Amino acid sequence: MNPSAESCWWRRPDLCYENGRLVFAGVAVDELAGRSTAPAFFYSAARVVENLGRVRAALDGAGLGGRSRIFYAMKANRYAPLLSSLAATRSCGIDACSPAEVAHALSCGFTEADISFTGTSLSATDFDSLARWPGLHVNFDSLHALRTWGRLRPGSAVGIRVNPAIGVGRGSNEKLRYSGDTVTKFGIYREQFAEALQLCREARLDLTTIHFHTGCGYLTPQLPQWDAVLETCLQFLDLAPSVRRVNVGGGLGVPHVAGDLPLDLSAWGNILAHRFADRGLAVDVEPGDYLVKDAGLLVLEITYDELKRDRRFVGVNGGFNIAPEPAHYGLPFQPLPLGDALGPTSPATVAGNINEALDVWYQDALLPDLSGERHLALINAGAYSASMASHHCLRGSFTETLLA
Amino acid sequence: MNPSAESCWWRRPDLCYENGRLVFAGVAVDELAGRSTAPAFFYSAARVVENLGRVRAALDGAGLGGRSRIFYAMKANRYAPLLSSLAATRSCGIDACSPAEVAHALSCGFTEADISFTGTSLSATDFDSLARWPGLHVNFDSLHALRTWGRLRPGSAVGIRVNPAIGVGRGSNEKLRYSGDTVTKFGIYREQFAEALQLCREARLDLTTIHFHTGCGYLTPQLPQWDAVLETCLQFLDLAPSVRRVNVGGGLGVPHVAGDLPLDLSAWGNILAHRFADRGLAVDVEPGDYLVKDAGLLVLEITYDELKRDRRFVGVNGGFNIAPEPAHYGLPFQPLPLGDALGPTSPATVAGNINEALDVWYQDALLPDLSGERHLALINAGAYSASMASHHCLRGSFTETLLA
Repeated sequence: MNPSAESCWWRRPDLCYENGRLVFAGVAVDELAGRSTAPAFFYSAARVVENLGRVRAALDGAGLGGRSRIFYAMKANRYAPLLSSLAATRSCGIDACSPAEVAHALSCGFTEADISFTGTSLSATDFDSLARWPGLHVNFDSLHALRTWGRLRPGSAVGIRVNPAIGVGRGSNEKLRYSGDTVTKFGIYREQFAEALQLCREARLDLTTIHFHTGCGYLTPQLPQWDAVLETCLQFLDLAPSVRRVNVGGGLGVPHVAGDLPLDLSAWGNILAHRFADRGLAVDVEPGDYLVKDAGLLVLEITYDELKRDRRFVGVNGGFNIAPEPAHYGLPFQPLPLGDALGPTSPATVAGNINEALDVWYQDALLPDLSGERHLALINAGAYSASMASHHCLRGSFTETLLA
Repeated sequence: MNPSAESCWWRRPDLCYENGRLVFAGVAVDELAGRSTAPAFFYSAARVVENLGRVRAALDGAGLGGRSRIFYAMKANRYAPLLSSLAATRSCGIDACSPAEVAHALSCGFTEADISFTGTSLSATDFDSLARWPGLHVNFDSLHALRTWGRLRPGSAVGIRVNPAIGVGRGSNEKLRYSGDTVTKFGIYREQFAEALQLCREARLDLTTIHFHTGCGYLTPQLPQWDAVLETCLQFLDLAPSVRRVNVGGGLGVPHVAGDLPLDLSAWGNILAHRFADRGLAVDVEPGDYLVKDAGLLVLEITYDELKRDRRFVGVNGGFNIAPEPAHYGLPFQPLPLGDALGPTSPATVAGNINEALDVWYQDALLPDLSGERHLALINAGAYSASMASHHCLRGSFTETLLA
């Protein structure tokens, strides 16, 4: 890879420089930037639909066909216009994890039948809410939850979220690991699965679905690991002949830095088909990041560009409280100047306006002199950003805009 | 330390078991717990005032006397009734880090003269806001900020936030380190200080204050390190004879786990006096955690108590999105049952209701069987909890209550 290709690893038809100006979703970003003095998120509806289409094509290409459903994990980004536009496509459902998420999805145009619910640590209030939506499919992740549901809705169809065995299940990001060596709070383990099945029998719950989360951020080189996670789930299926669907959460990674290549979706789909289709199971998937992350751009005002001791810092008017992935999860948002003819570059650390040292967007990005520039764009800001925003330091203001 | 003393390391007159019931701020917690089905924060105004009085006594005892001011770092907890009650005591000012925080403090009864502002990465909008409060003291942390302020308010009194030299400045928590080996975004370094002084001269800015942050979480064993940080700041003072005040941010740690002993405030005050009083400087301090952390209790509903594989988990109806310190900063909130006669204990991991594996409140707490209990209390929840809360997974609901 030559240096110029490497520095533009993120480039694609709807995110590139044209005539010296950064363009996103068909609009020059310097035009978008003038609309707000607060940090501004822009989402491309077209890019989300394109990402969704790619997942659908991979499922279809692997022969999983019309029985396979895609549930968008709305916790990644619940911006209402984005959800409404997705509902209008009728091409995906919703993965919800709290009753309030279910209510929000319904408000945005999804139906109960479109929603798959997989929560954790459900309270009495949560159960009361869930029981009021008879068309909702629910996956439970504890014996307590199955017991409670069996009392509330005996005879209903349910899913169980399981947790695969030890030694597998690492995503590329340790902080986002859901299963594997460490015993996590998620799912029902093999050791408790017989009791879970017994609870289903006692309450005549029809166990239709096995749900599991595989960890996050798998790119092509990690697909063999991902396949190993899928394999460990077969032991649960062997014990539960009533199951007609598997629901595979997590998995689909998005490139974050130069050198990351897009996930080979065809290989991904074929692994799913190989593991489950031969058993006659329908396969559902729950992408979150994959659908919306690279469809989001965060535009910030530049506040300064100067040396601190011997290190160059570029300050911006927004911090990790409006998008925690770079600071808390080690997933950087590559910064892009709004013009590509600003002269020679040097490494600079892009830092936010929150009074915490960890409030850094990107370490040592190659950037031109930005002291005369007004804005900077950060890519990959479409997931787990605004949806996790706080008002820390009372710096929680931002705008969101859905672009066509 | 005997086992029982160790398991009750957190006990104090206003937080203890009485007649088998957990009591906080003079109220039985099981009475407080029934008032809300959402996660509920309770703050003790009396405990905050007590903490504040202890800091004041230490400053007075060290001979720093009436010239020394305490600025409460409101980003730790900005609950309006708490701020109003503090304002009414007239015993502390406010450390604010954003214009919105200044406005909020003013609304809660503080005056401009009560507020010390130390922000970072200030935008043009921020400068406009700050310039509208002529009585506000502002510390600037970049050359750009000094340059901008020199144009907006030439001739005014200012402070500079400096960043001490390498090799020192580690707080007990790596994530909360503000100065030291790593070059952070904060403050003006020694290498840029001459230019900062030149900018002050050019705009006739009266440099009255040197501000620095020492890192967080120092307890008594770390005081020699803290003293070393203070020493490195003297080099800035030597170059700035106009300075009449030093403002020392951070430093004051709070016990988090068994074995942590309360900070020796007398030793702390004497170090401040030794370093600065001999130079005729007034010494201001900015406690945040120290004033409010142990004055906050978070009461959660228990959702389940069961084994996952071979590990016991206790689920609760609130997660790290309403209080990120345990999950993101490694600062656990010790869980306490509401009764102390619930039988034998065994290790349990207390986990929240957010769909992320890191959503854990406490690993391996010794807890009795809680399957028949309704609530669990988490201590040390008064700082950087609600003030950093997000609506992640649309599970952001909670209540706050100020107790006398």
